[in-house]
Amino acid sequence: MNELLVRGADVLQCESDSCSILTNHDIRVEGDRITAVEPSGSIEVVPEFEVIEAAGMLAAPGLINTHAHVPMGIFRGLAEDVDIETWFNEYIWPLEANLTADDVYWGMQLGLAEMISAGVTAVADHYFHMDRAVVAVEQSGIRAALGWAVFGSQGTEGVHRTVSFAEEFSGAADGRITTWLAPHAPYTCDDAFLSAVAWEAERLNLGIHIHAAETAGQTEASLAAHGRTPIKVLADSGVLDRPAILAHCCGVTADDIELMANRPCGVAHAPKTYLKLAMGAAPVLEMRAAGIPVGLASDGPVSNNTLDILESLRLMSLMAKHESGNPRTMPVGAALTVATRESAKVYGMPDDLGCLAPGFLADVILIDLGGAHNQPTHDPAANLVYSTRASDVRTVICNGEVIMRDRRLLTFDLDEIKARVGESMTRLSQRVPNSRIQRYQP
Amino acid sequence: MNELLVRGADVLQCESDSCSILTNHDIRVEGDRITAVEPSGSIEVVPEFEVIEAAGMLAAPGLINTHAHVPMGIFRGLAEDVDIETWFNEYIWPLEANLTADDVYWGMQLGLAEMISAGVTAVADHYFHMDRAVVAVEQSGIRAALGWAVFGSQGTEGVHRTVSFAEEFSGAADGRITTWLAPHAPYTCDDAFLSAVAWEAERLNLGIHIHAAETAGQTEASLAAHGRTPIKVLADSGVLDRPAILAHCCGVTADDIELMANRPCGVAHAPKTYLKLAMGAAPVLEMRAAGIPVGLASDGPVSNNTLDILESLRLMSLMAKHESGNPRTMPVGAALTVATRESAKVYGMPDDLGCLAPGFLADVILIDLGGAHNQPTHDPAANLVYSTRASDVRTVICNGEVIMRDRRLLTFDLDEIKARVGESMTRLSQRVPNSRIQRYQP
Repeated sequence: MNELLVRGADVLQCESDSCSILTNHDIRVEGDRITAVEPSGSIEVVPEFEVIEAAGMLAAPGLINTHAHVPMGIFRGLAEDVDIETWFNEYIWPLEANLTADDVYWGMQLGLAEMISAGVTAVADHYFHMDRAVVAVEQSGIRAALGWAVFGSQGTEGVHRTVSFAEEFSGAADGRITTWLAPHAPYTCDDAFLSAVAWEAERLNLGIHIHAAETAGQTEASLAAHGRTPIKVLADSGVLDRPAILAHCCGVTADDIELMANRPCGVAHAPKTYLKLAMGAAPVLEMRAAGIPVGLASDGPVSNNTLDILESLRLMSLMAKHESGNPRTMPVGAALTVATRESAKVYGMPDDLGCLAPGFLADVILIDLGGAHNQPTHDPAANLVYSTRASDVRTVICNGEVIMRDRRLLTFDLDEIKARVGESMTRLSQRVPNSRIQRYQP
Repeated sequence: MNELLVRGADVLQCESDSCSILTNHDIRVEGDRITAVEPSGSIEVVPEFEVIEAAGMLAAPGLINTHAHVPMGIFRGLAEDVDIETWFNEYIWPLEANLTADDVYWGMQLGLAEMISAGVTAVADHYFHMDRAVVAVEQSGIRAALGWAVFGSQGTEGVHRTVSFAEEFSGAADGRITTWLAPHAPYTCDDAFLSAVAWEAERLNLGIHIHAAETAGQTEASLAAHGRTPIKVLADSGVLDRPAILAHCCGVTADDIELMANRPCGVAHAPKTYLKLAMGAAPVLEMRAAGIPVGLASDGPVSNNTLDILESLRLMSLMAKHESGNPRTMPVGAALTVATRESAKVYGMPDDLGCLAPGFLADVILIDLGGAHNQPTHDPAANLVYSTRASDVRTVICNGEVIMRDRRLLTFDLDEIKARVGESMTRLSQRVPNSRIQRYQP
C-alpha cells in the first residue's frame, strides 16, 4: 500500500464560502486516501512512509476541471478572434473532419500533461474516440470523468456509442475513471434523442454531461423554434432528473434557474471562453444563490486557449465583481469554495474530492509561493486567487500517487508527446468545410 | 562595447494592428542598440560577440508597463475584495502611514525582480521616496520612467518635491532612467497645483504622469463639484499640453476623448485593477479610434495583485471582446501592437522601444513556447496573447545587457529581497487610520 507523509505544509481548508489555512501541518496518505491532517510532528513517521518535505508550501486540494475537450489542444491557435457560429462552422467542425483516434490519444496526453503541470487532478472530458482517451488517462495517473460526445444526427447508433463507452469503462484505471453519457447539446440533439439518453442514464445509474444554454442567443433560438428554453427542453426530456454537468449556461433565464434548483445538476463555468467568444456572462451569483453548484472549467483549448484552472478561478472572481459592479462579490473564500468543494460536487464526487481531510481521496497539490509575484505572503489564500500562476504548482499527488515532483512529470514524456503532435500539425490545420461534422444552427 | 548575437529566434514584428513572425532570424546587438535583424546565418559572427542560442524561442520586444506603483508589492494581499473608497481610506492610505524609504527600496527590488522574470524591461512608476527607487533601478538593469507622487495638500513643497526629483535623476543609470512629474490626480490636486506642475513641466521639458478619470464616479463627482470633468480640469490647467501618461480613464466621456485626441497624451490601461475593484471598463476601442495611444499597465500590486503585463495584455483583449459583444474586436495583431509600439509611445519613447529592428534600443525577451500549454504552435502570436505565462519568459535583455538568463536573475538576489521584505511584514500590515496620508473623497 502506498504510504506518504506530506510534511510541514500550510494546508488550505474551504467550506461554505470561507477558507482558512492550517499552518505547518502534516498530511498522511495511506493507499488512495488521506488518513490524517495534523500539526507537523504529531504524526508518527514509520520507515515505510515516503516523506515529501513541504515546508513553506501551500497544500491545496487537486484542482478539478468540470468541463473540457482536452484533446482539442492539437488545434490550439487555429480559430482565433471569431464569433461562435464561425468558430463552429468555419473552423472547429471542418477541422474535426480530419480527426483520427490517434490524434485523440496524443492530444489527450498533451492536455493531461498540461493539466498535471498546472495542478489539475480531475477532469470531466467530453469528446470523441474516448476509448483512446482512456489509455492516456490510465498512463497519466490523473482522475477523469469521461463521456463520448454524440449528436442527435447519429440517431440510435449515437445513443449506443455514448452508452457502450460509459458501460465499458466505468471504474477503469483502478477507479480513477468514471463515465458519463455525453449528448452534445439541445441544439444538436432532438427531444427523442435526449429522452433516450436520459432513459439509458436512469437504467445504468449514470450522469449526463451536456452543453446547455451556452449563450442568450441559443435560448432565444430555442424559444423561437420550440417555445421552450434549452433548460426546459432538458427538463422535459428527463435529462435534469439525472445527475448532470451543464456546460456554460450563459443563456439561462430566471425560470431556468428555478427549474435547475433542487435537481441533481451542476454548472461547469469556463469564463475565459465566454470572454474570448463574447458569449456573455454566466449568472454565477444567481445560480449559486439558488443552491445550484458551480464548478470551475476550462472548456477546450481552442477557445480558452489553455486548460489552466487557476486562470478560470481568477477570471470567475474578477468577472463576478465586474458584472455585479461590486468588488465585495465572490471574495477569496467564496472563489476557493467554488474551486474545491463545489467543483467536486459538480464533478459528482462531493464526499471524495475537493477537501484535504481524513477520508477524502488523496488528490493534493503543493504550491510554491516563493516567487516574487506572490511575496510577501500576507494572505496565501488571496495569492491563490489573484497572483499564483500554474507554474507555481511544484508537486502533484493524485489518488495517493505522486505524478509530478518538483515540476518533473513522472507519468509522461512531454518531448515525445510534442514530437508526435508536431508531426501531424500540417494535416490537423487543414479545414474540410464539405466534411464538417455538424452545422451550428441553434 | 557590449556585443551580442541572439541566434535563430522567431522574431515578432508588430505595426498598425497587425503582426508577423520572422522565423529563424538572428538579432545583432551592439552597445545598447539593435544593429541588425537578419535570416539566421547571414550575420557574420566575430569572436567578440556573445552568442545567445534562441532556436525555437519567440523573440519579442521587452514588455512595457506604462503605470505602476512597484514598491506597493510589500502590501500585497492586505486589501482584498473591497471597493475603491474603502481600498484607499481604510487600507492603502492608513498602511502607507507606515511607509519608510527603506520599504520603498526593498519593495522596488521585489517588484523589479518580479517584472524582469515576467519579461518587463521598462516601467513607468509613480510612488514615494523615489530617490531610493532609483538605486534599485540602477542595480536591476531595467529601464524606468520615474515620478515622485505628490498631493495638492503638500502645496509648493509638493511641487518642488516632484520637480527636484525629476531634475536630479533625469538620465540616471546610464540613461535607463527618465523622469516625469507625478501629481497624484485631479481629485487630490487643485487647479493651482496642477497649473504649477504644468508650468514646471513646460519649463523643464518634462512629461506628467497622473491618475485621471479612474471611474465614472470620479467624473460625476468632478462635474458636481466644478462643472468640469477630470479630463477638462487637466486640459484647463495645461497638463494636457505636455506629454502625459493618464492612468486608467475608465470614466472618460465622449467629449473627454475629443479633448485628449491630438494632444501628446497616452492612456495607461490596467484592466485587472478595474475588474478587481469593479471600476468599470475603460473605452479602449473609442480612445484608440480617436488616435489616442493606449499602453499596457499593471497598476500597483495591491490592486492587481501582480506586475504581470502578459496578464494585462490578455485581459485587455478578452475584455474588449466582452464589452463590445464582438469577438473580432482587439484581435491578436491589435493586442500585440498595443503591447509593443503603442506602449512605447505612451512611455514616451516611440522611436526607441517596442520594436525589434535596427536602430531601436536592445530590449529583447526570449519566450519559450515549449510548455504543454503552448503546444503545438500553430500560431505563436496567438500563443503570446492567449496562452503564454510570465514563467515562459526565459531570457531578458535590456539596454543590450542580459539581466535574466534561462530564468536566473543576474542583477538581484531574490532570497535576500524576500528576507528583507519578510522582516517588515508585521509592521507593514499595521494600519494607522489616524495617520492616513490622504482621504479619498473625489
